[in-house]
Amino acid sequence: MNCLSHVRIVLVGTTHPGNIGATARAMKNMGLRDLALVSPKVFPSGEATARASGADDILAGARLCHHLQEAIGDCALVVGASARLRTISWPQLDPRECAQLVSASNAKTAILFGREHSGLTNEELERCHYLLHIPCNPEFSSLNVAAAVQIVAYELFLAAREQASADFAAPALATAEEMESFYGHLERTLHDLRFLHERKAGPSVMRRLRRIFNRSKLEKKEIHLLRGILTAVQMRIRPQT
Amino acid sequence: MNCLSHVRIVLVGTTHPGNIGATARAMKNMGLRDLALVSPKVFPSGEATARASGADDILAGARLCHHLQEAIGDCALVVGASARLRTISWPQLDPRECAQLVSASNAKTAILFGREHSGLTNEELERCHYLLHIPCNPEFSSLNVAAAVQIVAYELFLAAREQASADFAAPALATAEEMESFYGHLERTLHDLRFLHERKAGPSVMRRLRRIFNRSKLEKKEIHLLRGILTAVQMRIRPQT
Repeated sequence: MNCLSHVRIVLVGTTHPGNIGATARAMKNMGLRDLALVSPKVFPSGEATARASGADDILAGARLCHHLQEAIGDCALVVGASARLRTISWPQLDPRECAQLVSASNAKTAILFGREHSGLTNEELERCHYLLHIPCNPEFSSLNVAAAVQIVAYELFLAAREQASADFAAPALATAEEMESFYGHLERTLHDLRFLHERKAGPSVMRRLRRIFNRSKLEKKEIHLLRGILTAVQMRIRPQT
Repeated sequence: MNCLSHVRIVLVGTTHPGNIGATARAMKNMGLRDLALVSPKVFPSGEATARASGADDILAGARLCHHLQEAIGDCALVVGASARLRTISWPQLDPRECAQLVSASNAKTAILFGREHSGLTNEELERCHYLLHIPCNPEFSSLNVAAAVQIVAYELFLAAREQASADFAAPALATAEEMESFYGHLERTLHDLRFLHERKAGPSVMRRLRRIFNRSKLEKKEIHLLRGILTAVQMRIRPQT
């Protein structure tokens, strides 16, 4: 069930050792183990250990780095948490989107959390493939760094759990190609029915039908059932035309 | 956008004032304002104010209570966070389910978080309508109390935001009655087509079709489109029979 071994949490320039300890606890609570600390002000520290509250193994295993590059050099995906919606237009994720992206891949991934008062620098953010923004009250938007890690780790845990159960139990979903064949079959049937002709609104009707079935995320077997119905309609109306 | 004014966070028997401050910050970050403290060990406290980090207004407005009853007496819905899956079988929610339940109603709601080391007592949990369990690593399942509040507040914020945008922008979803009429129409059409007869599997086919369209959460307008297609099918095949 632990599908999160490829995920590293990177704290950059943390000032308060209590936040490092609270981060370790939040990580272990959610099944994360890989912590890197870039230039923390104080580490190791009794306060970090106290706030880790049993997650000392995460602290003991943390890698201490002088430069960000040491912490992310082996990562194929780098995501940077950012409170501000920066003027630089960078691809953004919220925690749930980030968790889905990360849990769907096995690529070594670093998620960066910046300094308590100033976050990540623009230079650090430019090393990231995505910015991660936690939705919150716009009038009081500065989250504690360990609280931010807690939310992201929680979403990662949920996504990994879902991924694990999907790997075992999920019925096979239709591929994009199978969906296109289905929509083609549906459109021909509606033409045979003269349903599209009559309304002179073929593209719009088909678009609306695609929305309905795309939302439903059809399984392969369901596509067979629906196409069986379409074939039955075609068989019954063709003799007339 | 603040639809959370009916939600009160209740900390019961908190030992560390830092956790009270961190809770206030987590609440304000997510648009919550109503905090009650039942028999905190130390309050007010400089440490609470420091950790609140700008959410002092939440601390200043907090109601201090000697007994749980004072904190929940005016609430129609009471939810208690519980790390352990207790042997008493009580209705359980995870944070997302809790947030959906709470944001869909305007009933005054209290969400209770217990002592750092022992949580809520069984007697306190029995005052709750639901237990709230945060999914986490079963081998290290004790979350910091402010971290638990942070996760729940985050889910509440997302649910309230979704509710607010649904209230304004969402197209009207079909009612259960409209869905039943649609399924009745679909079943009659499949009978007319002899699709159900041939397979002798009416109930199973209809069950599978219900799964597809239920997942899709159909809008009223979409029901009209689909029933228009069914009517077109019936018009074309009835003359033959």
